Amino acid sequence: MTINGTRLLARIQELAQIGAIEGTQGCSRLAFTDSDREGRDLVMTWMTDLGLTVTVDAVGNVVASTSSAGATGAVMAGSHIDTVGTGGRFDGNLGVLAGLEVIEATLAADIELNRPLAVAFFSNEEGSRYPPDMMGSLAYVGGMSVESVLEIEGADGTVVGDELERIGYRGAAPCPGAVPHAFVELHIEQGPVLDNEAVQIGVVEGVQGISWTELKFIGQSNHAGTTPMSLRRDPMAVAAEVAVAARSIATDLGGTQVATVGSLTLHPNLVNVVPAHATMTVDLRNTDETLLRQAEQQLMNSVQQIADREDVIVESRSLARFEPVEFDERVVDCIEALAKQKGLSTRRMPSGAGHDAQMIARVCPTGMIFVPSLDGVSHNPAEHTDDEDLVAGTQLLADAMLALTEVTW
Amino acid sequence: MTINGTRLLARIQELAQIGAIEGTQGCSRLAFTDSDREGRDLVMTWMTDLGLTVTVDAVGNVVASTSSAGATGAVMAGSHIDTVGTGGRFDGNLGVLAGLEVIEATLAADIELNRPLAVAFFSNEEGSRYPPDMMGSLAYVGGMSVESVLEIEGADGTVVGDELERIGYRGAAPCPGAVPHAFVELHIEQGPVLDNEAVQIGVVEGVQGISWTELKFIGQSNHAGTTPMSLRRDPMAVAAEVAVAARSIATDLGGTQVATVGSLTLHPNLVNVVPAHATMTVDLRNTDETLLRQAEQQLMNSVQQIADREDVIVESRSLARFEPVEFDERVVDCIEALAKQKGLSTRRMPSGAGHDAQMIARVCPTGMIFVPSLDGVSHNPAEHTDDEDLVAGTQLLADAMLALTEVTW
Repeated sequence: MTINGTRLLARIQELAQIGAIEGTQGCSRLAFTDSDREGRDLVMTWMTDLGLTVTVDAVGNVVASTSSAGATGAVMAGSHIDTVGTGGRFDGNLGVLAGLEVIEATLAADIELNRPLAVAFFSNEEGSRYPPDMMGSLAYVGGMSVESVLEIEGADGTVVGDELERIGYRGAAPCPGAVPHAFVELHIEQGPVLDNEAVQIGVVEGVQGISWTELKFIGQSNHAGTTPMSLRRDPMAVAAEVAVAARSIATDLGGTQVATVGSLTLHPNLVNVVPAHATMTVDLRNTDETLLRQAEQQLMNSVQQIADREDVIVESRSLARFEPVEFDERVVDCIEALAKQKGLSTRRMPSGAGHDAQMIARVCPTGMIFVPSLDGVSHNPAEHTDDEDLVAGTQLLADAMLALTEVTW
Repeated sequence: MTINGTRLLARIQELAQIGAIEGTQGCSRLAFTDSDREGRDLVMTWMTDLGLTVTVDAVGNVVASTSSAGATGAVMAGSHIDTVGTGGRFDGNLGVLAGLEVIEATLAADIELNRPLAVAFFSNEEGSRYPPDMMGSLAYVGGMSVESVLEIEGADGTVVGDELERIGYRGAAPCPGAVPHAFVELHIEQGPVLDNEAVQIGVVEGVQGISWTELKFIGQSNHAGTTPMSLRRDPMAVAAEVAVAARSIATDLGGTQVATVGSLTLHPNLVNVVPAHATMTVDLRNTDETLLRQAEQQLMNSVQQIADREDVIVESRSLARFEPVEFDERVVDCIEALAKQKGLSTRRMPSGAGHDAQMIARVCPTGMIFVPSLDGVSHNPAEHTDDEDLVAGTQLLADAMLALTEVTW
């Protein structure tokens, strides 16, 4: 069975017109806005035009299945069609439209399958308007109750339940939803590795564990001219050393370990004043929980040592902590084998970003396929993946979904 | 001759009522505001009540002299009575009111002097409302023309000339002003050294040279999860290493060298995004111009090396550069000798902050006396100097001024 690349690309283009950011290739379709509704309406039209059974659940997740009985036991593809405020056209959308293309091509080829195929788009994966991210898929697997989702208030003061009602996507289908036989998400990498190494397919083994720590260093604000170095309690000096230490911890641990100081705020932030306090964040990620804990421990040891030396007070708090997710080896192996059969260059890799697949992995064997992102740019209108990579990834998704209909766990 | 400590302290308290910040010991009398006018009016009343010859020049500097011929050839004390937005009651004010007290006590003691005594308060020393700081004393010695001072626009859109006119302090006396025989400024240290070492008097040898550099590091914004350490061009990593290097340069050079990173701003400043760029400032100070240049050179070498290693672009610009000022050795020695005669503990030291005395030093032999600041706190309502230190410093100023009337250069 061969997917129709032209049809796939045309759908990606057409969906990208909704919420298009003028003068760019990007889109703005924040969850539960009018643009999100328009995008949902378009994709639902495509789903129903194929004669699929389409359901909308209480948090707005939309599932289309080739079976009139729904998606239980189906081999499911899926992702999301909401975007960040200034996003690209491929993040999420590719996985949904590729799943749709796989189903359309399979139906057209009139292939007899052991199991139904399904494709889903999950609500509010980005979490830009309402926390948390991956909200819809989390609720889909019962990780968060419908009630608590509907009550969530956004930074703009709106409430998820009201907005879902307003856009007409507060559905009647049960949530938690139907448990699939297997789940595969095709997604752009959102990182530079495949592009950098000129590899066509990323075979995703799992999602990195995430540890976000906020560190506040409280020192003594002083005049930058009149205070000798020996009499300072300088929180910026501590922050700088901690940032250097965080990086060393990551490079020394190696492997998938990364460390990022993305945010640092000084007060009063004046050229001639030793700051009173500094607040910084450290983002640590690893695919291995033991190593991630080791990195966290090393970081906190360094923090305490450096702060003590400078006589600066430390306040630390965890902003987020997720354990790594390992995808099902059988699904991972299947994807890799099929890619190699097709002569595609592959690379096993973790996902550094969060994806709906990591939630669905709680209830069924799950895997992901990555295609390259130009320069690793994502969450940005400049996000780009070449047409041939989009098509190759979708064909691999098709091959994998069909193969998984044959597998029994 | 003994000064009247009670009268001195009463005047400090009375002046501090003007622009008092409720619930604190602090003052807000930004240059050329109504509060500044009220403060000026009060001090001028005290000056004229003593029968002094008082002049106001075109930039609002006020000089009071015991001679009807003015301050030419006088031994002059002086400082400023403007404050930062949330300042203390001693910074500047002490030097003016101590000078006034010296004159009143001398007149009361009916001492015959070879030279007149004078006391001045210079406009807008703080520079908080209008740049540059030390504006009045700079104009007084001809370092800036009256025309250019009057045209300066503040951040609030007002113009110096208009505001001076409005508060009635655009005077007729010539500017540049009368050249004194000698100038001595009594000031709180605004740093922690005297308080920390329990020393009563700082004999100020000069003012540190200042070098302010803004460094902008331009890297590549990336996803904190999906970008391996080896593929990053992280401007925060560069900023952190440069901050560590700046500190090492200062501690390795030793002596009076200080280095401060007081300001650092990341963009976009998000926990999970490798920043696109980082902008930081480095404030370097030394009393020795050669060593200051050495520190600047070492800093820029480090910056280039660190940024190159991370493949980050550097943009640097100088925000301020002043050479060190050395006070007249004869004045410095005189102050030190008199303090020791009185049994006061002394310490020779540089000033890390700028003062009017460094401008007046361009035209006549000049020195400064520091008294301790509790915990080094200044530019803050909590600024505090003990009464006995205020009185001891003022008595030393009196002794020095009288001694300097006897000296011929």
